[in-house]
Amino acid sequence: MTVLGIDPGYGRCGFGVIVRDDDAPNGWRHKASGVITTSCDVDFPDRLLEIANDLIAIIDKHRPRMLVMEELFFAKNTTTALKVAQARGVIMLTARRSGLEIVEVKPNEVKQALTGYGAADKRQMQEMVKTVFGLASIPQPDDAADALAVAWTGATKARY
Amino acid sequence: MTVLGIDPGYGRCGFGVIVRDDDAPNGWRHKASGVITTSCDVDFPDRLLEIANDLIAIIDKHRPRMLVMEELFFAKNTTTALKVAQARGVIMLTARRSGLEIVEVKPNEVKQALTGYGAADKRQMQEMVKTVFGLASIPQPDDAADALAVAWTGATKARY
Repeated sequence: MTVLGIDPGYGRCGFGVIVRDDDAPNGWRHKASGVITTSCDVDFPDRLLEIANDLIAIIDKHRPRMLVMEELFFAKNTTTALKVAQARGVIMLTARRSGLEIVEVKPNEVKQALTGYGAADKRQMQEMVKTVFGLASIPQPDDAADALAVAWTGATKARY
Repeated sequence: MTVLGIDPGYGRCGFGVIVRDDDAPNGWRHKASGVITTSCDVDFPDRLLEIANDLIAIIDKHRPRMLVMEELFFAKNTTTALKVAQARGVIMLTARRSGLEIVEVKPNEVKQALTGYGAADKRQMQEMVKTVFGLASIPQPDDAADALAVAWTGATKARY
């Protein structure tokens, strides 16, 4: 069982791939993580296409059964929020077209799942990503660590 | 030259297809219009997939060179706005994957293009859609007429 977590964005989109592994410290092993980037020199439709194509490559390589993302929340910077939402729609479409189950988690569920309480700060969350997967250091960049946190939350919520 | 206008939505998504035709009263002929609908009984990722697949069918049938949509604006109902934005991202991706040029127009540009002033009301706009394309009645439903208005605006803005 492989789970893909995504931290959606149009300039930077974090991803984290985890695999069920009974030998791993907490039952799930870190397999891959990183960030899909697109250039602001490219027009927005082409950025969406790049995100979709890079996501297809990740899905083809790791064959996840499930995609996990945080529920959409309403941000302050509304232009950015609407652009992120468009990228998120592209991610959701691409995953569904590849036959993935899609699980949405709430931000406080992610905090709860990783730290045991719903008001953890960003640094505590990232430390817990390192601990949960038994890693030597916090995965970089932040977007990748966030995506791993989301993947973990979805995986444990779905009880695979 | 064929232009596709879209009035994006996730439950109802209007479309209008117009063709350059020097015999038409204003140089463009109405070819097709209507609405892509998705059911609220279906989960959101599958609704996005339905929209993408229906849009692909429209593009394959009519072979437009250009897709026109209104720029994203910030609505009051924020949950709806974010869902529409996700559908809009899917539409943009699908059009770009099919090689269409994508043109965005402002709401007041649409009003200006159809009625000659930027503060026209909805009814005046729909009457003008009828007049511009020399139709016997206003295209139904409203979403389809809106999409035709947007297509017209993009087509005349791009000066094809």
